[in-house]
Parts: sequence; C-alpha cells; structure tokens
Amino acid sequence: MAGERRLIAVLRRLFGPPPAGVSAGIGDDTAIIRPEPGHDLLWTIDTLVEGIHFDLSYTPLRDLGWKAMAVNLSDIAAMGGEPQSALLSLGWPPQRELTQVLELAQGLQEAAQAYGTSIIGGDTVAAPAGLLLSVTVLGRIAAGRALRRCGARVGDAVYVTGPLGLAAAGLAVQRHGLERPALETTPLRTALLRPRPQLTAGRLLAEHRLATAAIDLSDGVASDLAQICQESGVGAVLWADAIPIPPLVAEVARHLHLNPLDLALKGGEDYQLLFTLPPGQREALAAAFQQAGLAPPIPIGQISVGPGITLALPDGEKLLAEDGFDHFPDSGVADGG
Amino acid sequence: MAGERRLIAVLRRLFGPPPAGVSAGIGDDTAIIRPEPGHDLLWTIDTLVEGIHFDLSYTPLRDLGWKAMAVNLSDIAAMGGEPQSALLSLGWPPQRELTQVLELAQGLQEAAQAYGTSIIGGDTVAAPAGLLLSVTVLGRIAAGRALRRCGARVGDAVYVTGPLGLAAAGLAVQRHGLERPALETTPLRTALLRPRPQLTAGRLLAEHRLATAAIDLSDGVASDLAQICQESGVGAVLWADAIPIPPLVAEVARHLHLNPLDLALKGGEDYQLLFTLPPGQREALAAAFQQAGLAPPIPIGQISVGPGITLALPDGEKLLAEDGFDHFPDSGVADGG
Repeated sequence: MAGERRLIAVLRRLFGPPPAGVSAGIGDDTAIIRPEPGHDLLWTIDTLVEGIHFDLSYTPLRDLGWKAMAVNLSDIAAMGGEPQSALLSLGWPPQRELTQVLELAQGLQEAAQAYGTSIIGGDTVAAPAGLLLSVTVLGRIAAGRALRRCGARVGDAVYVTGPLGLAAAGLAVQRHGLERPALETTPLRTALLRPRPQLTAGRLLAEHRLATAAIDLSDGVASDLAQICQESGVGAVLWADAIPIPPLVAEVARHLHLNPLDLALKGGEDYQLLFTLPPGQREALAAAFQQAGLAPPIPIGQISVGPGITLALPDGEKLLAEDGFDHFPDSGVADGG
Repeated sequence: MAGERRLIAVLRRLFGPPPAGVSAGIGDDTAIIRPEPGHDLLWTIDTLVEGIHFDLSYTPLRDLGWKAMAVNLSDIAAMGGEPQSALLSLGWPPQRELTQVLELAQGLQEAAQAYGTSIIGGDTVAAPAGLLLSVTVLGRIAAGRALRRCGARVGDAVYVTGPLGLAAAGLAVQRHGLERPALETTPLRTALLRPRPQLTAGRLLAEHRLATAAIDLSDGVASDLAQICQESGVGAVLWADAIPIPPLVAEVARHLHLNPLDLALKGGEDYQLLFTLPPGQREALAAAFQQAGLAPPIPIGQISVGPGITLALPDGEKLLAEDGFDHFPDSGVADGG
C-alpha cells in the first residue's frame, strides 16, 4: 500500500457515502452541506499532536482515532448541540506503514457512528515529525438555544455531569506504573483512551434551558471553570468534599503519592460537562436527567462575585485559579483542546 | 508574553468581533453560525506542516499566514462559492517567541479581509517539532450550484484561469539560487508566498453555469486534472504549445536547466482554477469574464475518452498521468492540500 490516492480510497470506503443533506464529500476538497431551516450551526476544530496529546507507546491507533473524534464531539456537547458531520485533516509520518491508517480510521469511524456523525472529507499531508490529527465538526441546534460560556451569574450552582479524575489517574498509571499491579485499572485506561462526549446531557440542558453557562472538561475543572468565570465576569467557590472522586482514583493517588483533588480538579480530559444552574432549577434538572435515564449531575460549588476560584477545604480556603490555566508551560494531559 | 490565554486575547483583538450571523466565536470552543435560507454550505480544511509545506528560512511568518488562509479560500473558489468564516487550529513550538504569533496572525487576517472572510475561533496547541496550521473555512453558494469535480464530459474544453509555473519557478529559485542575480524574481516570490484565490472567477463559472467540472491548481495541472478525470470517468489531451508559461518562468527554467513544461504542469501551487467547458459555451465564457473585468481563461486541452492524460507535443504524444499523483513519495511543492 503506497501513496495518498490509495489512502484516500481506503478512507472513502471505510467512512461510507455522505449522509442526506450532504452532496459532496471525500473526493472533492470541499464538502457541500444543505443546512436545515430554524437551526444554528455549531462549528469546532481540535488538533492532536504526537508527543503532546498522545503517546503511541501506550495509545493504540484505534483508540487515538476514537479520541480525536470524541474531543470534538465533546465541544458540540458543551453547546447542547447534535453533531452532524466531520472533516479529517491527517498528517501522516511517511516512515510509518500506511496500513496503520486503517486502524486509526476505524477508531474515528467508531466514535462518529456511536454519536450519529459522518466523516465527509478532509485532506492528508505528510508529517515527518509525528502523527497529527485535526478534526473539525459541524453540529446543529435549534436557533438561539446554544449553551455559552458567558452566562453564569452570581448565586448559580456549579454542577458536573459525572465523576472526575479518572483520565488523569489513568495517565498517571501509564506514565509512572503502579507498585501494586493487582489493582484493576481498566476503567482508568478506558476513561483516558475512550472518552465519552456527554451529548445527551448537553442536549437536555439546552432543550430545557437549564444551564446559564456550560463547558466540557478538557483541561480540568480549575482551568475550564476559570474560562466560564472569565467570560461571565464572575468568580466561584468549589466545595472540596463535594468533588466526585471515584474510589479507584483515590486509591491510585494514594499509591502514587498524588493528591486526589489535583487529579480531579487539574488533571483534565474527563470530558464531563461543567455547567451553572440558576437558583430554583434544581428539581427541574433532576427530573430532566432522571427521565432521560442519566445519572443525576453533581453540585460541586457556587458562582461568586469573585475574582478567582476558591476551593473550600475542611481546614480553610485555598485559591485554586486566579485567571485560568496555561497550555504552554506544561505539556501534560491538560493540553487537549 | 507567555501562555495560551494571552495568546488567545491577542488573536481575539486582531481578528475582531464576529460578523453578522455569527453569534459566538473566539472565547467559546465552538462557533455558532446562522445559515442563510436558499444556500448550501461549502466546507474545507487544509493543514500546513513546517518542513513539508513551508520553510521558515525563506518564508516570512506574515506570508505564511496569508498562504494558510489563501489555500483554503482557493478550495471555496474551486466550488464557485463565497467564503464566510474560518477557524484556525494553531500548533506553536513552545521554544518560539510568542510575539511572532502576531506576524502570522496578521497574514491570516490580511487574506481573510481581502476576501471578505472572518476568523471566528479555533484552538491552539503546543507543537514542539515545528509550526502547524490547520485552517477550516465555511463558505456559501446558491443551493445546488456548487462546481464539482465529477461533471467533465468527453468533448469539453479544458481551461485555466491564468499563467502556470510561477510558484514552481519561485520555489526553484529559493531552493537552488540563480546564477544571474539581475533577474527580477519578485513576481515569482509573490506567486509562491502570496497566492491569490480565484474567487471571482469561480463565482462567475458557477453563476453562469459555465463549467461542468472545476478544481483549484494546488498540486499541478497533471495531478489536479487527473482528479477531475478520475471523478468524471474520462481522460484528457493537453496541448503543450497552448500551456500559458510566462517568459520569466521560461527564463528561470533555462538558467536552472529545468523543463518549463514541468514547472507549469507538475510544479503546483499556482492556485489558478482549472475547469471544463461544454461545447458551444466559448463565447458566453469570454463575455462573462470580460464583463467582470477578468483576463480571459486560456484553453489548454480537451476531455477525451481516456484513460489517462496525454500531452500533445510538436514531435508526438507523451503520457502525462496514468491515474494521478502521489503526495507521499515526493515532499516537494505539490503537497499543499
């Protein structure tokens, strides 16, 4: 197998024909989409770089494909939207076997199919210094209903849709190993390699107008909540004892001498949604999630006048974030778009 | 200047507020766009990789920014559309001064503004092995009017919108130098570093329904016409003496002992449009371009039964392309998406 033309032919077969409303795709450089009346488009891009966002020594290519798609779908989830189609820009190291593209593409296609999305085009380039994946996704939402980062108000409650720290604990185990190999770390590995975009939760929040602001947890609560606070001009208080840390995360933290709260609040890549709920909406929120068969979201704090994000611990308070988080100084797990 | 947050703040100022119809942009991960009724969306992505698509030893960052935007706009031109908005995914080497982002962003913004497009969001990642730029552009076109690659028919004439080989000659001069420094190579440099997407020409072809197929010349006539032939199930004959090679390209070829036809047909990156015109439309084509104040397109050959693309030379025929061109074996100028 050699050459870009054959590569594109393989991808075209794997990704299948374009869906209804899409009249060109792979084969043309540019996809054609007929938008539906009454809807807004949601549009996002995320790039994953070998050596920064993934390490192929422990990341199977199929999982990498899943993740590259999932992190983009998670952006659509954070707006409350429904993903529809995706373009893939693939940078492939010429020295790497082209047959491996198939594994990567299968993972991309698995995530796309799992969430009702079609990969309809893109481009391929040579990338000698390491694998690159840029995925851009278009989604839709009823006009005017998209969740934003800028609407949080003082007094709103801060919620997350699920447990925190699993991906960070998974990364710590991959990087440092565990003294106790008997520990069952599969859930951590799955959380790290196969994140699940919270599309149903996002849609519920948008449909029922439950959230004043929302974001997906790619960088970690401290950094992502700081984004909401900055865009909304507010601060926040988090309650340390309310942070949902699974027992397995706590156990890994103990073994590796890490602070479980750091894994949960700064580790990133959980891809749960974090959102702010206005006062008086607590029961409506619980009812909507219960009716949809989803686990109830977990309150972890409250929006304050600010500035900054404070962590309320049993023995006092600690400033968690002044004005957010930097990607560049630290090239760890928290760089994932 | 340090850190991604400040980087995003700088880009946000430079790229300005989102245009009408776009209700979120930089600051949210996902842009929100309200599509217009009666229009199809055109959607494209191109990635430029340092060391493959550009060499910073002779490419100013500002020109690189222009080019990263222009090559995407050229894809929209090839469909006959009007570009509207863009997302930028920027991979920045942490060891490179962040102030240089401003130069790059200025070039992106110059090209966006020159062609009526707004940069409305994206993401930034660390890219230690070299600068990366993924740009994705959304455009629009009257529903059902997009130019495709698959409509060429036997007997159609093959046209290009302008001269060929300037960018390839420019690259050759950059790489090999010239024995005769007195030669005025600025037009070659401009063609290489500041390509001009043929948006007006594309719109004319789509509006007047003049082209049965169209493509922008990123990889070179041989490769790009092969794409049209493959998608349309036809072949083509090109007339060597009709290929529009500017005297400066011929002169550079002579000095560097290159074949000027190779520069014109295989060099790539001219970003002219190549299109196929059905019989009987010649005068309508000339009239439409004249009325718009554009130089008349140049006929360079004809669609045949095929297979393959043949070059008709004064002394016989030569097979130019069997089934297209490979990006991976050769990492030259022709890799530009």
